[in-house]
Amino acid sequence: MQNQFIYPLRVHIEDTDVTGVAYHGSYLNFLERARSEWLIQLGMGINWQRENGIVFVVHSLSIQYLKPAKIHEQVEVVSSINNVRSASCVFDQYVRLAANPDQILCKAEVKVACVDNEMRVAPIPSSVLKSL
Amino acid sequence: MQNQFIYPLRVHIEDTDVTGVAYHGSYLNFLERARSEWLIQLGMGINWQRENGIVFVVHSLSIQYLKPAKIHEQVEVVSSINNVRSASCVFDQYVRLAANPDQILCKAEVKVACVDNEMRVAPIPSSVLKSL
Amino acid sequence: MQNQFIYPLRVHIEDTDVTGVAYHGSYLNFLERARSEWLIQLGMGINWQRENGIVFVVHSLSIQYLKPAKIHEQVEVVSSINNVRSASCVFDQYVRLAANPDQILCKAEVKVACVDNEMRVAPIPSSVLKSL
Amino acid sequence: MQNQFIYPLRVHIEDTDVTGVAYHGSYLNFLERARSEWLIQLGMGINWQRENGIVFVVHSLSIQYLKPAKIHEQVEVVSSINNVRSASCVFDQYVRLAANPDQILCKAEVKVACVDNEMRVAPIPSSVLKSL
Repeated sequence: MQNQFIYPLRVHIEDTDVTGVAYHGSYLNFLERARSEWLIQLGMGINWQRENGIVFVVHSLSIQYLKPAKIHEQVEVVSSINNVRSASCVFDQYVRLAANPDQILCKAEVKVACVDNEMRVAPIPSSVLKSL
Repeated sequence: MQNQFIYPLRVHIEDTDVTGVAYHGSYLNFLERARSEWLIQLGMGINWQRENGIVFVVHSLSIQYLKPAKIHEQVEVVSSINNVRSASCVFDQYVRLAANPDQILCKAEVKVACVDNEMRVAPIPSSVLKSL
Repeated sequence: MQNQFIYPLRVHIEDTDVTGVAYHGSYLNFLERARSEWLIQLGMGINWQRENGIVFVVHSLSIQYLKPAKIHEQVEVVSSINNVRSASCVFDQYVRLAANPDQILCKAEVKVACVDNEMRVAPIPSSVLKSL
Repeated sequence: MQNQFIYPLRVHIEDTDVTGVAYHGSYLNFLERARSEWLIQLGMGINWQRENGIVFVVHSLSIQYLKPAKIHEQVEVVSSINNVRSASCVFDQYVRLAANPDQILCKAEVKVACVDNEMRVAPIPSSVLKSL
C-alpha cells in the first residue's frame, strides 16, 4: 500500500458558515471523503465492506483548527495510516492549501473501528491487515 | 387530523453560509424536520413506516426564497397537507419569523410519495388515508 | 460562453441518509457546486462578485427526484443557462450517472438573482450579460 | 452561572447516513447548537459577540463515539465549562438518550477560543470571565 494519500477538493458554499470561512464541522466531511476515496482505490470501499459483513466506523477523533479555509479555496487532505490493530486503525490526516502546501489548515487523528452488521467490534479481514 | 402543524426551530451556525444568512439548502432540512415531527405526532413516524413496509420519500418540490433567515433567529415552519392521492400527497409549507409571523421567509410545495422497500410506488395505507 | 457545463462528483457518506441513498437535500449541494465551478471557470466566482458589489443568490427552484443516487456512485451534474433577464437567470440542471448517462437521477430548474450588498435586487453587470 | 446546561434535540433524517444511524459529523452540530443556546441564554450570543468585536471559534476538539444515535431518537446534550483562560475555555460535553440518561452516546471536549474580527486571539471580555 502507498504510505500516503492526497485528496484534493474545493471549499464550497455549503461548507462555509456565517463567520465567512469553513464551518468547523465541514472538515470532518473533508477527512471522511479522503478516507473513503483511499479505501475505494484500494478496493475496500463500502460495497466490499458489505460483502465481507463489516463496516469501518469512526470510533474517536481529535482535530486542531489552525487556519480557516476560505470559500472556493482548493485544499488537499493528506492522509496516512498508523497504529493498525486487529479491529481498528488510526488515520493521521491534515488539510493544507493546494496553492501553498506549507499552510496547514487543520490536523486530525481519526481512529476507525471495524464492526459487524450488529455494530459489534469485528476483526479487520486478514487481507486488509496485510495490505496495511 | 389537525389541518395545520406549526414547528418552531432556531437557525444555527451549521445552517448558515458565507453570505451571512441561512444557506438555501438548509430550508429543506427545516421543512423535513417539520414533516417528520408531524408524522411522529400522528403515530406514523419512520418506525411505523418500516413496520408497514413503506417509506415516505420526497418525489419533487418547489421553493421560493423571500427573505433570508438570520443566525440564531427563531422561526416557525407552518405545514398543511393537500391533494392526497392513493400513493402520494402534497405538503404546503412556509417558514416565518416567530417574532413577526407576517414575515414569510420562504414558501414551498413538497410532494411526498409512498414507496415500498424496493423503492417502488406503493399505496398509502388506508389508515393513513383516512386520517389525512 | 459554452452552452453546457458538466461537473463530476462522487456521492459520499455525508450525502446519504438512513434510507440508504442520497438525502433529498444533498442534491441542492450538488447543483450548487456545479453552478459555482462554472462561474469560477468563467472568471465570475464569489471573489469577482464581491469586487463588483454583487452576489448571485438562489431566488427559487424546483426539483424532481427520479432515481436515488447510491453511496460512492460517480455522478455528473449537467447545467445550462436559459432565460437571462436584467437581474436574474435560470439554470436548467440535471444529475446523471457517470457510468450510464441515460440514467437521470434528478432534474431541476434554479432561478438565480443578482443582489447587492444589502440583498436588494441589482442589475447583472453588462460584462456578464454579454457572456451569457 | 449555572454549572451545567442541558439541551434536548431530536435526531432527524438530515443527521443520519447510509449506515442507518447518525453520521459521525452530525454530533459536532449537536454540540455546537448546545453551546450556542447556552451562550444565548447567558446574553452572550453571536450578536453580543459582534457588538464586542469578538467571536468564539472552535480551536480544537476531541470526541469519542460510544453508541450510535438512531433516527428520531430524543437525545440531550449535557455541557459544562472548565479550564477558563484569558482567551479560551474548554467545554465538556456529552450526548445521552433522553429516555435513558445512563446511555451515553458520545463524549467530547471542545476548546473554544476568543478571536477578534481579524481572527487574531483576543482576550475574553472581563464580564464574561466573571460570569464563567
